[in-house]
Amino acid sequence: MIDLALVGIGAGAPGHLTLDGIAALNRADVVLVPDKGAEKGELAAVRLRLCAAVLTNPATRIVTVAVPRRAADDPDYAGAVDRWHDAVAAAWGAAIAAALPDGGRVATMVWGDPALYDSTLRIAGRLKATIDLAVTVIPGITALQALTAAHRIPLAEIGAPVLVTTGRRLAERGWPADADTVAVMLDGASAFRALDPADLRIWWGAYLGMPAEILVAGPLAEVAHEILARRTAARAANGWIMDTYLLRRTAAG
Amino acid sequence: MIDLALVGIGAGAPGHLTLDGIAALNRADVVLVPDKGAEKGELAAVRLRLCAAVLTNPATRIVTVAVPRRAADDPDYAGAVDRWHDAVAAAWGAAIAAALPDGGRVATMVWGDPALYDSTLRIAGRLKATIDLAVTVIPGITALQALTAAHRIPLAEIGAPVLVTTGRRLAERGWPADADTVAVMLDGASAFRALDPADLRIWWGAYLGMPAEILVAGPLAEVAHEILARRTAARAANGWIMDTYLLRRTAAG
Ligand SMILES: C[S@@+](CC[C@H](N)C(=O)[O-])C[C@H]1O[C@@H](n2cnc3c(N)ncnc32)[C@H](O)[C@@H]1O
Ligand SMILES: C[S@@+](CC[C@H](N)C(=O)[O-])C[C@H]1O[C@@H](n2cnc3c(N)ncnc32)[C@H](O)[C@@H]1O
Repeated sequence: MIDLALVGIGAGAPGHLTLDGIAALNRADVVLVPDKGAEKGELAAVRLRLCAAVLTNPATRIVTVAVPRRAADDPDYAGAVDRWHDAVAAAWGAAIAAALPDGGRVATMVWGDPALYDSTLRIAGRLKATIDLAVTVIPGITALQALTAAHRIPLAEIGAPVLVTTGRRLAERGWPADADTVAVMLDGASAFRALDPADLRIWWGAYLGMPAEILVAGPLAEVAHEILARRTAARAANGWIMDTYLLRRTAAG
Repeated sequence: MIDLALVGIGAGAPGHLTLDGIAALNRADVVLVPDKGAEKGELAAVRLRLCAAVLTNPATRIVTVAVPRRAADDPDYAGAVDRWHDAVAAAWGAAIAAALPDGGRVATMVWGDPALYDSTLRIAGRLKATIDLAVTVIPGITALQALTAAHRIPLAEIGAPVLVTTGRRLAERGWPADADTVAVMLDGASAFRALDPADLRIWWGAYLGMPAEILVAGPLAEVAHEILARRTAARAANGWIMDTYLLRRTAAG
């Protein structure tokens, strides 16, 4: 029997960690740290630093798992994700079986909140096919919360809705019918460029909660250019970028 | 000069507190605890217990502020909220001036995340008219995250959007055009009753993160009745209720 805790660690700042998250890590026999290879090496390093900062249980072992990468160019997107989840589950299963042949407690650190655009819950679901598994989820601060906190803005207007979506979807569907606020994640192509900027205001953030944090806000028509320029420059300088933004339609623009 | 930290404390569990939140409380000269009167007394009590659990700075003082209540029956909803924010800002301003006549650091504890359906940011905005104020926001775990964690579900389907909305708005507008997942907060009237339950699945939670936590999930057509019955009973037993839920449209129902 394996107890698996999916611990949301927040979106970049070590101070995002919650007391429940710290307790779950310290209850674990094994903390599983996925290693996605060089490109994402910085994210594995963040996790290892967090462990070093908050692990006080000398019995807790850290085990890194090399996880297979998703075929980025597979035209069958859903099928590729599906096969990738299977492959990751197999790698985790092998690592867990090797580390805890008689069962025990495993924790893994999930970026942001495990519920938000993350595959760990689905991978844990696959694992249940081969391991007797009980899953616990510890929520964590999301990138969207890091964004609104950094800009000191409410997510929604009073009593009004917000659509949380991806860059790909925003580009495909345009501005939604049901909300004057749209929060965008997973946007590698700056989908806001495709929108009519009239009456739209943007609050953008990259590397939120990290030393490299960048914030830009203003009417989309005025600041879109600056965001694109800073995004390109930062990505070149750091080798990677994570960014997210909120768009709000306002009468005044 | 006043530094005001709005500290998201999470949605009910003391373990939702983040390291940044704890640090901000301990940096404060004064922690301002709003007291909204008997009905919400339990929420003030939660805050005072959290302070007792995490405050280690002996110099930090706890100051409770009686905050005026909003006129619940004012037909001019927006106007009433506006006047209420002014009145709360005046009460806070007076409390801060009395406690820190020469300036200093104030922290206040905000339920969940300060960005999500909470008025504290707007009240801080009003305060700036009368006080030289610098605001910091510390994100906190929201009720929606407590909900998805308790049910161990992703907020959205892979790459798909989610509409976060209120019960009032869902009742007025019905199912949105742009999302197959809807997350509902601030619903005193169980707006899901007005929806056609075919193909809808619900994950409902009340008193999330608290000892009284209740979870119900299933096809809406099958569990709506149980949710309404348990909601009514729990509300009668406890004198108050806070609940939230996720609805997902699935091909299979
Ligand atoms: C795969 S999703 C994971 C989201 C995560 N589970 C969360 O709760 O924030 C990754 C996306 O989150 C956003 N993101 C995550 N961390 C970020 C950060 N520190 N700064 C800016 N955006 C971030 C970006 O939009 C990125 O494309
Ligand atoms: C005024 S809003 C504040 C939301 C808060 N800022 C947050 O981030 O969760 C209050 C609503 O949040 C939801 N809520 C807050 N705490 C909750 C809990 N512990 N259990 C269930 N619902 C909760 C309910 O829908 C309630 O009507």
